[in-house]
Amino acid sequence: MAVHTKKLTFHMGQGNVVRDITGDVREVVGESGISNGTVTVQSGVSIGVITTLEYEPGCLADLEKALSVFAPFDPPRYEHTRRWHDENGHGHVRNAIMGSSETFVVMNGEICLETWQQIIFCDYCPNVHPHHPVFVCVMGE
Amino acid sequence: MAVHTKKLTFHMGQGNVVRDITGDVREVVGESGISNGTVTVQSGVSIGVITTLEYEPGCLADLEKALSVFAPFDPPRYEHTRRWHDENGHGHVRNAIMGSSETFVVMNGEICLETWQQIIFCDYCPNVHPHHPVFVCVMGE
Amino acid sequence: MAVHTKKLTFHMGQGNVVRDITGDVREVVGESGISNGTVTVQSGVSIGVITTLEYEPGCLADLEKALSVFAPFDPPRYEHTRRWHDENGHGHVRNAIMGSSETFVVMNGEICLETWQQIIFCDYCPNVHPHHPVFVCVMGE
Repeated sequence: MAVHTKKLTFHMGQGNVVRDITGDVREVVGESGISNGTVTVQSGVSIGVITTLEYEPGCLADLEKALSVFAPFDPPRYEHTRRWHDENGHGHVRNAIMGSSETFVVMNGEICLETWQQIIFCDYCPNVHPHHPVFVCVMGE
Repeated sequence: MAVHTKKLTFHMGQGNVVRDITGDVREVVGESGISNGTVTVQSGVSIGVITTLEYEPGCLADLEKALSVFAPFDPPRYEHTRRWHDENGHGHVRNAIMGSSETFVVMNGEICLETWQQIIFCDYCPNVHPHHPVFVCVMGE
Repeated sequence: MAVHTKKLTFHMGQGNVVRDITGDVREVVGESGISNGTVTVQSGVSIGVITTLEYEPGCLADLEKALSVFAPFDPPRYEHTRRWHDENGHGHVRNAIMGSSETFVVMNGEICLETWQQIIFCDYCPNVHPHHPVFVCVMGE
């Protein structure tokens, strides 16, 4: 049994960006030398979400439309904005509902994902950030 | 410390089906011989969701009603449908928001769930599929 | 490699309460003596949710408002209420969508969370309960 942890850093630019990080996570699994076990992927930023999606422009637009039903980007709507003058209230709500981590099974050295299932990192902060951390832990043998 | 991974296969029929898979996951925990640790359950299909619910017809109807507020089964609503002629746009959105995995704690050989808390596998694809994979990993000692 | 499991018990009072349990989870990580690995936090009650949020009154109000769009506290709305006379239909739906567990990465003995990212336990049952269990598993080396 072995464990391999790593901090990845993503430069997300202006924010409100959803990125496919499947390749980055696969690389960490490869480095670990672990064949059977799990890989946990966790956002290290409060307005970040880790989940899966078919990463194509249609699904990305559909996801944003669905999230906008209950947590639109509309700063005056949020009590968080009124109290702190932050414009990321929708990001906090989306993170709490969607979750900040996902754990995948690894078998024969591969993450158990199908072709239309990418690991995405959603940065729902509209401000420019130099970088956002995502933490990865591979465990198994 | 030990690790036990397994691929389960479920025949979901016509799709848009929510199944109670608690017994199947319990069986894998039993096979593993692990008494204390975790069990990770992960959908191996992009429109599949792993989560928990009190598995009774009322809660199943209530969950579908809630999901229909932001991601109804309504193919013309989705950009994914327009681009790919797939009718599973709602499934991709539900997966991204609800998540494709859940990890449970195992103590004294039992998954730490109460009576009204079942592990469910939701297949939100309306098409007939021969089978859908769910991956399970038990880790601990 | 080591594993450390623990059952925490929270007295939630009247219910419909969201509590910051970051300190409690940190304590379990400290007890474990594990420096690198993961910590899984899982609700042991069907209407409980484990997720993250910036724990301040604005975000708490915003989260409740967003959840009320698709799963308001409104017992007559739920089929679960009609069948079982329970008033927790919204809690079951919220649990299924938000998830009952979250797994975090541990590095150098610390959970990889930033300042504005707390681990929360949401009890969406409106009834008085003597206690609610949350299960924690720290694994690694």
